[in-house]
Amino acid sequence: MTNGVGMKIAVVAPSCTLSRDAAARVEAIVAARGDCELNIHPQCFESDGHFAGSDEVRLAALREVMVDGSVDAIWFARGGYGSNRIAEAAAGDLPDEAKGKLYLGYSDAGFLLAAFHRIGLDVAHGPMPQDVLREGGEAAVTRALDWIVRRDPASLERGLKGPAMAFNLTVLSSLLGTAIEPDFTGRELLVEEVSEHHYRIDRTMFHVTGSAAIRRAAGLRLGRASDLPENDPAWATDEEAIVRDWCGRSGLEYRGRADIGHDAGNRVVPFSFAGS
Amino acid sequence: MTNGVGMKIAVVAPSCTLSRDAAARVEAIVAARGDCELNIHPQCFESDGHFAGSDEVRLAALREVMVDGSVDAIWFARGGYGSNRIAEAAAGDLPDEAKGKLYLGYSDAGFLLAAFHRIGLDVAHGPMPQDVLREGGEAAVTRALDWIVRRDPASLERGLKGPAMAFNLTVLSSLLGTAIEPDFTGRELLVEEVSEHHYRIDRTMFHVTGSAAIRRAAGLRLGRASDLPENDPAWATDEEAIVRDWCGRSGLEYRGRADIGHDAGNRVVPFSFAGS
Repeated sequence: MTNGVGMKIAVVAPSCTLSRDAAARVEAIVAARGDCELNIHPQCFESDGHFAGSDEVRLAALREVMVDGSVDAIWFARGGYGSNRIAEAAAGDLPDEAKGKLYLGYSDAGFLLAAFHRIGLDVAHGPMPQDVLREGGEAAVTRALDWIVRRDPASLERGLKGPAMAFNLTVLSSLLGTAIEPDFTGRELLVEEVSEHHYRIDRTMFHVTGSAAIRRAAGLRLGRASDLPENDPAWATDEEAIVRDWCGRSGLEYRGRADIGHDAGNRVVPFSFAGS
Repeated sequence: MTNGVGMKIAVVAPSCTLSRDAAARVEAIVAARGDCELNIHPQCFESDGHFAGSDEVRLAALREVMVDGSVDAIWFARGGYGSNRIAEAAAGDLPDEAKGKLYLGYSDAGFLLAAFHRIGLDVAHGPMPQDVLREGGEAAVTRALDWIVRRDPASLERGLKGPAMAFNLTVLSSLLGTAIEPDFTGRELLVEEVSEHHYRIDRTMFHVTGSAAIRRAAGLRLGRASDLPENDPAWATDEEAIVRDWCGRSGLEYRGRADIGHDAGNRVVPFSFAGS
């Protein structure tokens, strides 16, 4: 609590540009709550090709709010692509001010969740400001804010029974073996996917479950796989059968479904939460 | 040389179904040459969902021709997706008859090139029977046959100066860290890509160059990146700039372009060839 209205939340965009419309709607939600202050960094609206500004601009904004002792939580504006390009640098050589904050996001922001968890920061997988534009998006944003402001258990993925991690499956696959790979040992690993063909999900599960680091996880749960393009030729099974198959082949325990995904229902998975 | 017409070549389909039209055209090319015998395994025309038969059927056909002492070369019918599902099993517990053969293919067959090279088999990246359907495809098939039958240097990727390997970039990314990862130490690594957005190529290059195993390669060369969907938002550079960027970041030497890709110009890259 750093000011009259409580928790101070900084929004930066390490991947793609935040929409002005989404920003305005989230600001209205925050104003109506009255229990937190939202600072949307101007970098969120920058644009440089695919990204919300160049690597240097995105990294500078992220580091600026990380080292700001008055900021209690950093909320990643949206996914898309690009946070992997600055994740290792963002996690390097951190002052104490960067610790003790919460870092929240998902999808492409998973690269930052991994890199920051790896160095002991408090990270969580959950809804982002851009999600307000989804159908039912206000509920998603409110769920995220309830977790940021008062660690409301109602925001949590239900059924977390021990230390967990959550990632977009393709993002998880892309960070394996890199400098930002976290330690999965003993974790329940939750994965979700969006806009990938079934054959790609199968190939990604081959890669992920082929990793010795992943096989040290306690088990795997599958969130939603949404907006999947039609496989050609048709895929004979579904995404849960694919995940079961690769868990079975690799000896990783399959623990059922999870309530996460690229949608308004996406629940919060704190990497440091040990469950009830 | 095992019969009157010379080299005996077996075609199997560890990934997707071979088209009957492609098979007939390649058989006509072989008949006109008169210097080799082509045995297209009936499994090539099987269909089971996405694949040319179930994993068991594809693996059985592959193992059948691998252990057949009368077969001189195994030519993978086409790519698509699926050889990773049987690659580790195909490479396990091999009799002597599986050695001393050439194994040729690319794209999804890269999983088999990796798994087989890893255990000392003679593999090469090059055109496949299904390529005959491409514009100029007869030249691609002839180039492959010239390499299989008489190791014609004219079929080779020009400029190979030492031990090399070639892969589709996404396939390479998907096999890193798995049981079929080969040893890249000292190799010139050639990569090509097809039908991936620029942001995906960037993400895959992040993953590949983030691998300690890949950083032991001597350098990297870029083949063609073809049929790329339009990036949204527009990507500011091109695929060569992406590859240069990640090579620079990782300390891997970028050695320029390579004459490989998903097209009729695709040249042969033998993994065992030490150059001129």
